[in-house]
Amino acid sequence: MGTVLINGRVVTPEETIECDIRIENEVIESMGKNLIKENDKVIDVKGAYILPGAIDTHTHFDLDTGTTFTADNFETGTKAAIVGGTTTILDFATQNKGESLEEALNNWHKKAQYKAYCDYGFHMAITDWNEKVSKDMQLMIDEGVTSFKMYMAYKNLMVKDREIYEALVRSKEIGGLIGFHCENGDIIDALVDNAKKNHKTKPYYHFKTRPACLESEAINRLASIGEVAKAPVWIVHLSTEMGLKEIKKARAKGVEVVLESCPQYLLLDNSYYGKETDESFEAAKYVMSPPLRGKNDNEALWEGIRNGDIDFLGTDHCSFNYKGQKDLGIDDFSKIPNGGPGVEHRVYLMYTYGVCEGKISINDMSRLVSTNAAKNFGLYPKKGIIQVGSDADLVVLNPNTETIITKDKQTQNVDYTPYEGFKRKGSIEHVFLRGNEVVKDENFIDNSPIGLYQRRNVRNFD
Amino acid sequence: MGTVLINGRVVTPEETIECDIRIENEVIESMGKNLIKENDKVIDVKGAYILPGAIDTHTHFDLDTGTTFTADNFETGTKAAIVGGTTTILDFATQNKGESLEEALNNWHKKAQYKAYCDYGFHMAITDWNEKVSKDMQLMIDEGVTSFKMYMAYKNLMVKDREIYEALVRSKEIGGLIGFHCENGDIIDALVDNAKKNHKTKPYYHFKTRPACLESEAINRLASIGEVAKAPVWIVHLSTEMGLKEIKKARAKGVEVVLESCPQYLLLDNSYYGKETDESFEAAKYVMSPPLRGKNDNEALWEGIRNGDIDFLGTDHCSFNYKGQKDLGIDDFSKIPNGGPGVEHRVYLMYTYGVCEGKISINDMSRLVSTNAAKNFGLYPKKGIIQVGSDADLVVLNPNTETIITKDKQTQNVDYTPYEGFKRKGSIEHVFLRGNEVVKDENFIDNSPIGLYQRRNVRNFD
Amino acid sequence: MGTVLINGRVVTPEETIECDIRIENEVIESMGKNLIKENDKVIDVKGAYILPGAIDTHTHFDLDTGTTFTADNFETGTKAAIVGGTTTILDFATQNKGESLEEALNNWHKKAQYKAYCDYGFHMAITDWNEKVSKDMQLMIDEGVTSFKMYMAYKNLMVKDREIYEALVRSKEIGGLIGFHCENGDIIDALVDNAKKNHKTKPYYHFKTRPACLESEAINRLASIGEVAKAPVWIVHLSTEMGLKEIKKARAKGVEVVLESCPQYLLLDNSYYGKETDESFEAAKYVMSPPLRGKNDNEALWEGIRNGDIDFLGTDHCSFNYKGQKDLGIDDFSKIPNGGPGVEHRVYLMYTYGVCEGKISINDMSRLVSTNAAKNFGLYPKKGIIQVGSDADLVVLNPNTETIITKDKQTQNVDYTPYEGFKRKGSIEHVFLRGNEVVKDENFIDNSPIGLYQRRNVRNFD
Amino acid sequence: MGTVLINGRVVTPEETIECDIRIENEVIESMGKNLIKENDKVIDVKGAYILPGAIDTHTHFDLDTGTTFTADNFETGTKAAIVGGTTTILDFATQNKGESLEEALNNWHKKAQYKAYCDYGFHMAITDWNEKVSKDMQLMIDEGVTSFKMYMAYKNLMVKDREIYEALVRSKEIGGLIGFHCENGDIIDALVDNAKKNHKTKPYYHFKTRPACLESEAINRLASIGEVAKAPVWIVHLSTEMGLKEIKKARAKGVEVVLESCPQYLLLDNSYYGKETDESFEAAKYVMSPPLRGKNDNEALWEGIRNGDIDFLGTDHCSFNYKGQKDLGIDDFSKIPNGGPGVEHRVYLMYTYGVCEGKISINDMSRLVSTNAAKNFGLYPKKGIIQVGSDADLVVLNPNTETIITKDKQTQNVDYTPYEGFKRKGSIEHVFLRGNEVVKDENFIDNSPIGLYQRRNVRNFD
Repeated sequence: MGTVLINGRVVTPEETIECDIRIENEVIESMGKNLIKENDKVIDVKGAYILPGAIDTHTHFDLDTGTTFTADNFETGTKAAIVGGTTTILDFATQNKGESLEEALNNWHKKAQYKAYCDYGFHMAITDWNEKVSKDMQLMIDEGVTSFKMYMAYKNLMVKDREIYEALVRSKEIGGLIGFHCENGDIIDALVDNAKKNHKTKPYYHFKTRPACLESEAINRLASIGEVAKAPVWIVHLSTEMGLKEIKKARAKGVEVVLESCPQYLLLDNSYYGKETDESFEAAKYVMSPPLRGKNDNEALWEGIRNGDIDFLGTDHCSFNYKGQKDLGIDDFSKIPNGGPGVEHRVYLMYTYGVCEGKISINDMSRLVSTNAAKNFGLYPKKGIIQVGSDADLVVLNPNTETIITKDKQTQNVDYTPYEGFKRKGSIEHVFLRGNEVVKDENFIDNSPIGLYQRRNVRNFD
Repeated sequence: MGTVLINGRVVTPEETIECDIRIENEVIESMGKNLIKENDKVIDVKGAYILPGAIDTHTHFDLDTGTTFTADNFETGTKAAIVGGTTTILDFATQNKGESLEEALNNWHKKAQYKAYCDYGFHMAITDWNEKVSKDMQLMIDEGVTSFKMYMAYKNLMVKDREIYEALVRSKEIGGLIGFHCENGDIIDALVDNAKKNHKTKPYYHFKTRPACLESEAINRLASIGEVAKAPVWIVHLSTEMGLKEIKKARAKGVEVVLESCPQYLLLDNSYYGKETDESFEAAKYVMSPPLRGKNDNEALWEGIRNGDIDFLGTDHCSFNYKGQKDLGIDDFSKIPNGGPGVEHRVYLMYTYGVCEGKISINDMSRLVSTNAAKNFGLYPKKGIIQVGSDADLVVLNPNTETIITKDKQTQNVDYTPYEGFKRKGSIEHVFLRGNEVVKDENFIDNSPIGLYQRRNVRNFD
Repeated sequence: MGTVLINGRVVTPEETIECDIRIENEVIESMGKNLIKENDKVIDVKGAYILPGAIDTHTHFDLDTGTTFTADNFETGTKAAIVGGTTTILDFATQNKGESLEEALNNWHKKAQYKAYCDYGFHMAITDWNEKVSKDMQLMIDEGVTSFKMYMAYKNLMVKDREIYEALVRSKEIGGLIGFHCENGDIIDALVDNAKKNHKTKPYYHFKTRPACLESEAINRLASIGEVAKAPVWIVHLSTEMGLKEIKKARAKGVEVVLESCPQYLLLDNSYYGKETDESFEAAKYVMSPPLRGKNDNEALWEGIRNGDIDFLGTDHCSFNYKGQKDLGIDDFSKIPNGGPGVEHRVYLMYTYGVCEGKISINDMSRLVSTNAAKNFGLYPKKGIIQVGSDADLVVLNPNTETIITKDKQTQNVDYTPYEGFKRKGSIEHVFLRGNEVVKDENFIDNSPIGLYQRRNVRNFD
Repeated sequence: MGTVLINGRVVTPEETIECDIRIENEVIESMGKNLIKENDKVIDVKGAYILPGAIDTHTHFDLDTGTTFTADNFETGTKAAIVGGTTTILDFATQNKGESLEEALNNWHKKAQYKAYCDYGFHMAITDWNEKVSKDMQLMIDEGVTSFKMYMAYKNLMVKDREIYEALVRSKEIGGLIGFHCENGDIIDALVDNAKKNHKTKPYYHFKTRPACLESEAINRLASIGEVAKAPVWIVHLSTEMGLKEIKKARAKGVEVVLESCPQYLLLDNSYYGKETDESFEAAKYVMSPPLRGKNDNEALWEGIRNGDIDFLGTDHCSFNYKGQKDLGIDDFSKIPNGGPGVEHRVYLMYTYGVCEGKISINDMSRLVSTNAAKNFGLYPKKGIIQVGSDADLVVLNPNTETIITKDKQTQNVDYTPYEGFKRKGSIEHVFLRGNEVVKDENFIDNSPIGLYQRRNVRNFD
């Protein structure tokens, strides 16, 4: 017995075709016309787009920041994901100082197992480099954690240039991919200390102490180390035009760069930080790193989206409540927990502000939120495409509705959204996770956590 | 009753999937597993690639150069095309001075009708610009000739900057696309006259009198005119690195450039012209315009292929026999008919030197020789992709053979090939034209000219 | 008997030194301290700058445009020049169709001889290219006319690409230098015809029909032809940022480009053309070609000044009265005589808006308005520098005054100035032409036309 | 009583003029003709160039490296300098860990005082950054040490990004200029450790462990920090094309970069390191940091010289004997003392390989080896130019001789020269230091150390 979606507009990476889809045993069995067999369940989705389930490459669920935990854990986070069309998330398991990678991975498995409403995988963030960690990277690969992360900023997390080099050499050896938070943390620390010494404590100074050239500097440095190590690098959450230029230069020299950005760097800008003289604490909602940038950066990143420089979009979902969490920094911007929510609205935002505004096609969108992520993180073609043999992770989007994004109607477990009042076009009428219909008319219809851990392959360096 | 190809490796623009294909009524009815219905003919192509029929965007069949006719006409040319995996060719109908576009089109219909072994369409080359021609461009569009051409070189064909501007404005208005031969003909004429005045008559001087910077100059000029006219431009047979740089610059400024190159500019270089002191006339085989360029140009174009700057590949097939035709210029290189054969070997060359050498994937190849051509010339998705609902133009390529390209085994009607001695990997075991099996094991199995004229749509400017 | 200027601040190309100057026999005999000999005349210029006499590389005096003559002839033009600190002008002798270069030169000698109040030389503008003209270029060199000009715009003046090539090859042979008016005249003519067909007749449309990309296109084309001809090119009156980029690119490729701009392209912008809907004819005062450009262009040219990309500044002085001349085009912008006055105010403008605003040093200024012009046009070191052995062409500038530029106080013979109301800092207290004091306290003190024709050397291609 | 040099060809930054020079009281009193007064000593230097005394911006005399001392101290080093036409050297006083800047300066004064044969000044190299050091930078300025240095490489010397930032902010405040050794020492250390772990101990690996991209990375990083600090930066001994590109990019963004290179990076290349398999230790002579680079780098730097990107040339003279010093690293390339001699031959090399080969004019040369150094380090116009009022530091160069550079004839106290066998054109017939004739016909004529410490001004940020 199968399920047949008929009359849909199937979105492939290249175009949109009218074609039926037959699902059997969690996968897509065939596509075309005249596919219905005896006993099949038939769903008519006339007029709707059928998209491949989206993949969020960058979430932080159930994360301990030292002073607090993120507002969303794997239960609330994955519910928000799937109701928003994201059927797989990749979360950052993070090594604590002194911990082995295996311990860190076990911690994250405990956080996620039996709690996830969408499929999930892990990247491993390395904060304490040593020989054992280097050795254990292979163990991670064997466990299906084929990507890693290192920080070039944040006093307690950042690694040295030499450690980056050694990790890249090792990663290259075993087929892994390392993502980097690119900002020069050393200079930022100096600027933050200066600001505080001068009694500049408002959230506005979070923005002023992280200038754009410190992102592009770190990107250039990373690319140079990647060049010496002859290893690919993944740059996470790119936020600046200058950084994008460095990446193009590095690619032209032959450095392989995998590039991620996030909707906030396309749609929000530094005007949200207000003015130096503002008394309000509202700007704390936008305290994230890197910070929001200029309108020119928004435009440059849209251009990078259009011409394929940016490979995919994650959210860097890392939510904290405005009341009770963000206000830890009411008297000192450097104590505000860094991050904001996003996993729930990414697909809608890209559809509304990308596709409906004519910036990208719906096919471009499906590559950015799904296909390219699957390809770069060893999930393809199981995930990331609507194609015979792939997992039946399907999102049925009715394009003909319009509403408003507001914290009052969101699923994610946080008391605000940075996109409050933004338009939301379309509505997600069905979400299938491996053939199981999980969401119908924007509601869960099966409230059991059927999300599975995805062991990922190493990238295919073709 | 249908036909089902089973066990093939279907090449899509993005990847290669194992999947069966069912053909009915000349189109692809469905793809997947378990597709066979009663009375279907089943062909097992286990291990072979199934590619979308290739499209050659640039042929000159049955062309009168004033002193001779091309060696290939529509009969021999389209046979060579389909045996080489090309199921559609786009030929340049060419207006003679004083002629209307309608007369030119009628001439070309007469040359092609009932003689073609593959499907075909026409571009219209305008050589005599005036108000009636401008008006009649709409007529061409109505007849399915949605693309045009103008020459910036060749004394008798070239148009003035102002005519380019006027034609682009008109073309924009009606949704057409104009291709341009980009070389500064005025300076080339001066260099040719100088060479001849100095008794430099060898084919080597064909190359020396057409320096690379005269291609990039013409491209820059064209792009500027396109910018003023706010119209897209199609640059045919790009041959130089410098030209590619101008195109990138123009695109960055917002000029829409459609870009074609040809296998000869990727695989052959100016060493074929020998040295200034050579007595041999052999170089005449490579007298084409633009000429072969340096190895750095080959490499830059491969890089342009890899990163998507080049949209598609045509051949500029314009064949003349070495004996009896090329030797019209034995005492004066400027009298050598310009051009060479290529339509038969394009797919094989790109497979052998692109895919098998690891420069591009087979999916990249299918975009370059088929999909992108279909998209830019209003044939998509009828042609150019293997997908439910598309024409069943299918090429089955067995990857496991290797032979040598030689004039002695070619179908095209000319006494040499520029690729003599080049490797040829793979063999084309079946070609289906709209569901009809035309080629089997590299031979025709149905010797009737079933090729149809393709009325093309205007481009979709998304 | 000599003259000694004491206590001045002598401006060299590199710096400003306190040093006395002794003049004898029209040249500078020595510099330093303790120079006064018996019978010397001593002038104390304490606190004032002593600048080398300025050289205007681009004037049109006594020019017949077909419908009218320029408002300034050699008498009024050179008086305006020297009162403004310019001791040498280079005017464009212009060949009429059918005329020989020798005839053209004779015409210009007649216009200038015994009428000039400053020294002068000629460039020869070639409008009718043929073999005799090519041959006669050597004659010009022999007569001290070592520079030429060709137009890439203006229907009646413009030459073809091939003619540019042939002239450059010839020029290279004999050591000449050719200047080019770089705009694509063919496309401009089309745009002008379109505008007029659409009843767009206001001076505003002069500006709209000459877009910036048509200057950069012509520059790229010229540079490519220069590359093939292996000859240096002089680009006159550069007006755009895009054009400057092309020049940098050409220089990086090894093309030798000599670059001139004018004060109007640094200080005035296209806001002077008003809006499309304006009824006023005032914009006619700024009808010149190339037209005034955007503020970004002003800035890019200032940057080109600062970093040495621009070699020198001329004025393109080509004056017409607003009443009685400019109004020939009251109903048709294309009939407005092209050009404006400038020779009188160039030095003051560069001092006021360049030096006093901190954009350039006074030494930079002296290179731009004098030294570099002398070097590029074969006058150096006779002219263009204050140095032992050079002509005593000296300008004494008191920096401590400020007034306003206005047509009511100008010497040039025209009823307006484009710089009306602009500030003028400093006052020119003395001008010496070959040791003769001609101007004192902004007035002539010797009203005889002692200006001499300057036979110029060919450039020194080091 | 004065001295008059007659009939010389005086080299100014712009050109060469025939002009006499009268010296009185250690300075140039006047220039011109007819300058001889009663009792003057007259020297006829007919046919010879008179150059401003050269300034070497980068020497290490009497330096303790921890395992040895440089072969040249202030006595031998300054003798070598002046016999080679260098009348002022700027040496790097270097702070030891734990030491105050004042102590370091006193150490250097002791090394130099009463021993120097040419004038000298100091830069202060900071290796141990702290608050007191920051404060004491003003003290250095007061003492005439207006420039500093920091290392981005060498484990024991290198500073952190934050320290660079803090030092630049401080330097900006007090008008100082900091020079940076730009290489990423952290990655180099990793590469050196890898090499040694793999038993790669030959001098060849000195070169292999310092790839070009680690220079350009450090330059980009420095420029970014300079951008944030809004301070000028001086980049010492630039060696790579990639680095030069980064500098151009930084300048285009508005970062003020002062740029030094050295003759070895123009004239020597990495072929001197031989091959991986070579058994010889000869390559140790060229162990310096940065290492010699590719021929493309040589060419790019010559181009940077020609177009003014490079401001001046030092030598990084830091000599060690091949026997007894370089061989400390016979079994471990990382123990070879880094550096080589150069102060004696810089002027000759630039004359022979720059001027005589037509790459630069003799005026360009005088700017590169003298004028621009004087301007950037607060010595101008006292030093660095031949001009009324300046110190009479004069070098008389007879252009008409040619010999060979060889260790056997050198003055510097070291047993080899990297330029062994190089041509040497011209001979220095007289050197005047503040009016005193010190060298005659390549020999000292007064063997007393009359060199004086030069208190330098802060740069003039115009």
